[in-house]
Amino acid sequence: MKSFVPVPDSSDFPIQNLPYGVFSTEANSQHRVGVAIGEHVLDLGAVKNFYPEKYHEALSANVLNPLMSLGYESWAEVRRITQNLLLEGSELHANQALQQTALVPLSSVTMHLPANIGDYTDFYSSIHHATNVGIMFRGKENALMPNWKHLPVGYHGRASSVVVSGTPIRRPLGQTLPVDGADPAFGPCRLFDFELEMAFFVGGPPTELGDRVTVDEAAKRVFGTCPLGPFTAKNLGTTISPWVVPVAALEPFKVDNFPQDPKPFPYLTHEQQFNFDIKLEVDIKPANGVATTVCRSNYRNLYWTALQQIAHHTVTGCNLKPGDLMASGTISGDAADSFGSMLELSWKGTKQVQLLGGESRKFLQDNDEVTIRGFCRNDELRIGFGSASGVVLPAKPFE
Amino acid sequence: MKSFVPVPDSSDFPIQNLPYGVFSTEANSQHRVGVAIGEHVLDLGAVKNFYPEKYHEALSANVLNPLMSLGYESWAEVRRITQNLLLEGSELHANQALQQTALVPLSSVTMHLPANIGDYTDFYSSIHHATNVGIMFRGKENALMPNWKHLPVGYHGRASSVVVSGTPIRRPLGQTLPVDGADPAFGPCRLFDFELEMAFFVGGPPTELGDRVTVDEAAKRVFGTCPLGPFTAKNLGTTISPWVVPVAALEPFKVDNFPQDPKPFPYLTHEQQFNFDIKLEVDIKPANGVATTVCRSNYRNLYWTALQQIAHHTVTGCNLKPGDLMASGTISGDAADSFGSMLELSWKGTKQVQLLGGESRKFLQDNDEVTIRGFCRNDELRIGFGSASGVVLPAKPFE
Repeated sequence: MKSFVPVPDSSDFPIQNLPYGVFSTEANSQHRVGVAIGEHVLDLGAVKNFYPEKYHEALSANVLNPLMSLGYESWAEVRRITQNLLLEGSELHANQALQQTALVPLSSVTMHLPANIGDYTDFYSSIHHATNVGIMFRGKENALMPNWKHLPVGYHGRASSVVVSGTPIRRPLGQTLPVDGADPAFGPCRLFDFELEMAFFVGGPPTELGDRVTVDEAAKRVFGTCPLGPFTAKNLGTTISPWVVPVAALEPFKVDNFPQDPKPFPYLTHEQQFNFDIKLEVDIKPANGVATTVCRSNYRNLYWTALQQIAHHTVTGCNLKPGDLMASGTISGDAADSFGSMLELSWKGTKQVQLLGGESRKFLQDNDEVTIRGFCRNDELRIGFGSASGVVLPAKPFE
Repeated sequence: MKSFVPVPDSSDFPIQNLPYGVFSTEANSQHRVGVAIGEHVLDLGAVKNFYPEKYHEALSANVLNPLMSLGYESWAEVRRITQNLLLEGSELHANQALQQTALVPLSSVTMHLPANIGDYTDFYSSIHHATNVGIMFRGKENALMPNWKHLPVGYHGRASSVVVSGTPIRRPLGQTLPVDGADPAFGPCRLFDFELEMAFFVGGPPTELGDRVTVDEAAKRVFGTCPLGPFTAKNLGTTISPWVVPVAALEPFKVDNFPQDPKPFPYLTHEQQFNFDIKLEVDIKPANGVATTVCRSNYRNLYWTALQQIAHHTVTGCNLKPGDLMASGTISGDAADSFGSMLELSWKGTKQVQLLGGESRKFLQDNDEVTIRGFCRNDELRIGFGSASGVVLPAKPFE
């Protein structure tokens, strides 16, 4: 399958990917839906006449929510048409004038949040991460809480805090306890951290409170995935990459689900594979401009699948809306350089993480830029997610 | 101050109140902004020409968010104009034809969620409730967590779960641990509960992540308040009353803030009163139709004020949007009949709560209707909130 749009070998965005995003340009500040192809964005609103009329509204929208709400079969049809449009010999290939308006260089676009995020849930689904944190705070014997292997633990987050890659994050203030039993202190956060995560957007029609989405139906509810990196708490800056990769693009990289013992309840049991070999990396780049990859992890380290997360979310009474964001929780592997947070990499601040260029870190310092990258790769194909990055700004002085 | 619209003595909605809500009628399904007066709703869109043009869009909207975003001084001006319109001898009083369209009987309206709720935070600000729960789960010695008196503890909730009064709530399913150390069981929730709370809507322009709203500025950010009653977890049904009472209407019922010891940090310290004498009641009505008031509490039992909640929320890096909902947490008093949840009233299921009509409860049963009411009253005036109610539906069978 070959596109007429040039795709460099190292590109995250071959014709087999076609991730969705929302962009604008200097010449046209209107937010528009597009897919990335090589070093361009295809403006879907500009080519909507190649699609059935029932999709025109979603393709001309300024967020992905209308497309997300259309559901599984529509996503497949829209993707098929887009892929055909971008093939060598397509009608778009033959139409130079339309290409001029519809294919926008990536270098000239500003990316925006891809959706209006109704609600944001942050799960805690990596067994290595949960074990590491448990050992640090409760000791080896009680590392995993008793319910951890019975259900996918999750936390409500704050949708307002989700920002698109490139948005700087201000160091917050708060109360800390310098010494156990002493009085708390107030001031800038001292142990500022990132978490390496992946997230998926919920799609399909909204459900009502009390409706269930079974673990087998849940695959039809996963619109697409993106890297996500919250800075510590779930309300002050949760950075996502601007490109949402459809699950269809990840098919060649499906792997066995993480083995689960004990076997979960039937409402959480599924046979179909819903785990993926997605390589994940985190760079830290201090003010000196020298970036260091401090973590190399993989999506496949997740113990709980997205399908189990959805089934559990709804069985407990919760409704879903297209555009809801569900994050995996920090994805750590079992190797020491695969840990997805500074908390783990510095083992609660007991050791330094060495950076190229001579610096070292236990936690993030002001002006550090954190970048999370995700990509799948085999001999023939690279499917990338682009990156999610943010700079730490110093705390505002408190008057 | 006397309105030309009749207001029965027992009404929650005299001209001194004028709570905001969103309504529709059978004849006109359009959601519209209105204020309650006696047994009518004044359709603000229908009388918008009495207001400056800058308010027309907010008054003709289908949610309160535009009005909320206008800010403090606009709320005061809109309220003053509305009050004048409803006075005896006003232009509206003289205009019978306009009254016909603008004054809609409460008995003929359907009420809707008053705002698009961006995010929903549920605080934990009643010292009696936190102490009761602490005693039950951690013992008397460790009842309050060490940080509880230093900052207003809060939890992110799920905005999608907030429903307007009258919406039935389905009993959820989930995992429980019948015996400590045994395997968990899966099935319908056994200990289904309510929580008696109050909430406020955030107003004013949106803030950016990292911007602070100081404790002194925070009063300008409280658009109005309403009763709220989540059913247990924060994602399966959080019922709010349809009427949002402006803070201005509560002025005559201001009381001293709850004494705080130790004195909180300067960023949480304020001199102005922001506590209110609001009587709160909870009824349970089983299928037999006989309602029993099982709890009589008061808003003034809250240890932390709304101003402190806002200041803490933003100092830790979080942004605010008009329409965000912030709930107080369960409001229990110190008397045994003032506890705001069945967990406390039945003291973790160790005693029965007697109902009129012969039944008794430890937790909620299917088909129980829970109603929360709030009102202020002195010798001259009653300012009411209406009520927030919901019926418990049986769990859906699990196939």
